[in-house]
Amino acid sequence: CGLISVKEWLQILSWSMTYWRCKGLKTAYIRIMTAAHPVAQLTAEAYPKVKRNPNFKVLDSEDLAYFRSILSNDEILNSQAPEELASFNQDWMKKYRGQSNLILLPNSTDKVSKIMKYCNDKKLAVVPQGGNTDLVGASVPVFDEIVLSLRNMNKVRDFDPVSGTFKCDAGVVMRDAHQFLHDHDHIFPLDLPSRNNCQVGGVVSTNAGGLNFLRYGSLHGNVLGLEVVLPNGEIISNINALRKDNTGYDLKQLFIGAEGTIGVVTGVSIVAAAKPKALNAVFFGIENFDTVQKLFVKAKSELSEILSAFEFMDRGSIECTIEYLKDLPFPLENQHNFYVLIETSGSNKRHDDEKLTAFLKDTTDSKLISEGMMAKDKADFDRLWTWRKSVPTACNSYGGMYKYDMSLQLKDLYSVSAAVTERLNAAGLIGDAPKPVVKSCGYGHVGDGNIHLNIAVREFTKQIEDLLEPFVYEYIASKKGSISAEHGIGFHKKGKLHYTRSDIEIRFMKDIKNHYDPNGILNPYKYI
Amino acid sequence: CGLISVKEWLQILSWSMTYWRCKGLKTAYIRIMTAAHPVAQLTAEAYPKVKRNPNFKVLDSEDLAYFRSILSNDEILNSQAPEELASFNQDWMKKYRGQSNLILLPNSTDKVSKIMKYCNDKKLAVVPQGGNTDLVGASVPVFDEIVLSLRNMNKVRDFDPVSGTFKCDAGVVMRDAHQFLHDHDHIFPLDLPSRNNCQVGGVVSTNAGGLNFLRYGSLHGNVLGLEVVLPNGEIISNINALRKDNTGYDLKQLFIGAEGTIGVVTGVSIVAAAKPKALNAVFFGIENFDTVQKLFVKAKSELSEILSAFEFMDRGSIECTIEYLKDLPFPLENQHNFYVLIETSGSNKRHDDEKLTAFLKDTTDSKLISEGMMAKDKADFDRLWTWRKSVPTACNSYGGMYKYDMSLQLKDLYSVSAAVTERLNAAGLIGDAPKPVVKSCGYGHVGDGNIHLNIAVREFTKQIEDLLEPFVYEYIASKKGSISAEHGIGFHKKGKLHYTRSDIEIRFMKDIKNHYDPNGILNPYKYI
Repeated sequence: CGLISVKEWLQILSWSMTYWRCKGLKTAYIRIMTAAHPVAQLTAEAYPKVKRNPNFKVLDSEDLAYFRSILSNDEILNSQAPEELASFNQDWMKKYRGQSNLILLPNSTDKVSKIMKYCNDKKLAVVPQGGNTDLVGASVPVFDEIVLSLRNMNKVRDFDPVSGTFKCDAGVVMRDAHQFLHDHDHIFPLDLPSRNNCQVGGVVSTNAGGLNFLRYGSLHGNVLGLEVVLPNGEIISNINALRKDNTGYDLKQLFIGAEGTIGVVTGVSIVAAAKPKALNAVFFGIENFDTVQKLFVKAKSELSEILSAFEFMDRGSIECTIEYLKDLPFPLENQHNFYVLIETSGSNKRHDDEKLTAFLKDTTDSKLISEGMMAKDKADFDRLWTWRKSVPTACNSYGGMYKYDMSLQLKDLYSVSAAVTERLNAAGLIGDAPKPVVKSCGYGHVGDGNIHLNIAVREFTKQIEDLLEPFVYEYIASKKGSISAEHGIGFHKKGKLHYTRSDIEIRFMKDIKNHYDPNGILNPYKYI
Repeated sequence: CGLISVKEWLQILSWSMTYWRCKGLKTAYIRIMTAAHPVAQLTAEAYPKVKRNPNFKVLDSEDLAYFRSILSNDEILNSQAPEELASFNQDWMKKYRGQSNLILLPNSTDKVSKIMKYCNDKKLAVVPQGGNTDLVGASVPVFDEIVLSLRNMNKVRDFDPVSGTFKCDAGVVMRDAHQFLHDHDHIFPLDLPSRNNCQVGGVVSTNAGGLNFLRYGSLHGNVLGLEVVLPNGEIISNINALRKDNTGYDLKQLFIGAEGTIGVVTGVSIVAAAKPKALNAVFFGIENFDTVQKLFVKAKSELSEILSAFEFMDRGSIECTIEYLKDLPFPLENQHNFYVLIETSGSNKRHDDEKLTAFLKDTTDSKLISEGMMAKDKADFDRLWTWRKSVPTACNSYGGMYKYDMSLQLKDLYSVSAAVTERLNAAGLIGDAPKPVVKSCGYGHVGDGNIHLNIAVREFTKQIEDLLEPFVYEYIASKKGSISAEHGIGFHKKGKLHYTRSDIEIRFMKDIKNHYDPNGILNPYKYI
């Protein structure tokens, strides 16, 4: 039993709302990526112009002795565990690699506080790390910074089903937060392809947007309170804040999206949404981006309060994903230039079906869509989403990828991808091996005006990088877009803020960093 | 043609969804409040412990000459227009009165910038003022501060119907923003009883919550960008930001709810929501607050994505409002201890009616509600809302009111009102004239855990104030609530933050104020 085509769905509806015809589909099988990829070049070697800050102390045995005095054995990893050390030093994209010899994994806020106070006093640089799924080199060291992992802070603290307030340690894995809330008839107001690894604190620290931003909005609105350890070890917390609290400057906001540069988020309070009783997903093939836009405007108007995601993928994205998910049958029969995944969620299945049906009938009648498949149960629903959620991993499975994440006005949204593809093609870089570029893939969140551009490569080369940068940034600046919609700045985009931000804004940001972290020990060489 | 009772509605539904029985109601007539109230005591006299900061310059003819050189005649008001001057000096509650002799009403950001630079250089204190509907004495001067009114900055700047991005000057009146967006099939994601007077910039500067917070959430999530003039005259702007933009610290957040203490908001970009195609409102009588809570949990679950407001009023609130709206027939026949107004908004009238009907049937069957009336058209809908929106004005119509605005866990929400009423009763202060207190009225936003407590008085007396404070704050602190859910701090709650905030939070806030406004010229004697 599997998906149902939009055409069949509409035919069936003409005589019965209750009959579901199923098309055969094997059980989904998601290939686990093998670790056949090269180890990233050391960041310090790849970017020789970036120098280690000589003000930072080099870790010595006295420091280690201190950390051993406050932490247990399973809260410390050092050179005696080289493989584990390596995984904390390298980013998910295999583009950046640091040389840290010490990973601290404290299991309490109090220990984080002691660690930070010590490091600040001694001028030991520190990189806070969540699930290390970051895409801009923000969560791994550049040189020998100590990695402060939140992994052992993984407890749910409290949940109030009346208000929907959910409180947890920063290191709770997103998947576990979702599961906990699911079991309590609620949902976490954000979801990401990296949900099996990313952590709640990391998501907050990077102001992640994700797949349901369109419906549930920004973390700046959903986070109710934070517990943060400052660079000097002080703990500042408003984690017990209620839904509304206008008593002074909203301090927590500065830490949302600060990428651990002015404090370490150790606890999060967030408002969970009621779990939808009905979920629908439809997957379309569409021939041009103009139609994608028309479909979006129509969906906003007709699906309105039940529209919870509107995602698009271009042909390159889906081709990579078909290769990657080789054992999973692709839901559509024909090839298209664009694919759209629409999700609705609501409290009444029949009402949602009716709204969706009217929408599908309209779009089919007006020939906006070429082909579509609709999920008929939760397993189908998950399978359709697999085709969207697997795109980043698929693009990254050939060796690595150059990744950009941009906001643009909807009318310009895909143009950046087209321009980059043309540029790489003109240079003869795209094609079968030994050409270095596999494909240029554009996909993302239409509803948020947010495109991800992944250049899937067999290897990272200077030639590709020079073709891409500053071209991409200049293009975005010329369209008055943002060079980072949701992935942040990290190491990758440090020094690039002027493409999006004014001098006075950048001055203000530097001022904030200097003010709250005067020794500059938190996540150095990055952000601002 | 008018409202329809819930009982009738359910009976009618049993044989037809399309028949609407109407009960006769005269055209609503909202009494315009006459200005029969006393002028407030000068704040400086009522609070003799607060001293004018001697570092601030006293305005002289040279200053006036400068302002005349950059502003036109209709952008300056001074002692030659004493009546107008008076209205800028006194707050809406008639509780605070300043002594400013100069009101500046610049019509451009550039002029605001010049004014601030001059004032900062000369150490002239400035109070930014929007619609002056503030409830904590934040928007009027305490001594001779210059009032900087945004009234003449009243233009819509831009609207993009695809993304819903609305940009306007800070001085655009909320009613006009609503009307503009309504004409473009959208709505402003916030509404307030003071919408005819309050301004968009003021709403942002005070982080107002309002009537639809439950549905559209916090301004921290909805505001996309701000244009702000800093105390030294510099203009910092990200008003052209897109829906998602993760390039550095989210600077605008600090100004949301800062009550004009670190900058003057001159422009706002906000995401507007799609205009609902269907609106429903139901007004209930309920006998105890426990049932109000049960009804809320039920509404969240059953009305879910279409629930857009859940407001409650106690008997005192409605008694005041019945007196105030004397020519408007009250929708219910019997007296109740509590009243609830539920609003739904969605994209499909039939679906919403079905959801609401099922909900009403359930609540009636389970005897949660005693009596209810449902709006059958837009005029009814507005009339039902009039009973909620008029409560603050009604409470303020006897001479004045003491006003508290608090967040609490839902189970504790009404207890503070009950405790205060008991305390005033025990002191024999509530009753007919000459007793000073008319009524104690509790009402607010159940969905946000936010209660407004209005003590309607014939006069402000030291005895009442001493009975109320610090009792109210201590009560809230004991329940771990917030002493200001949405009204802010202003003059009224300066020095009271410790009831809700920790020492380190307060230290951080003071640090922010000192850092961004080192001369302390912006909105002095208030906030932090």
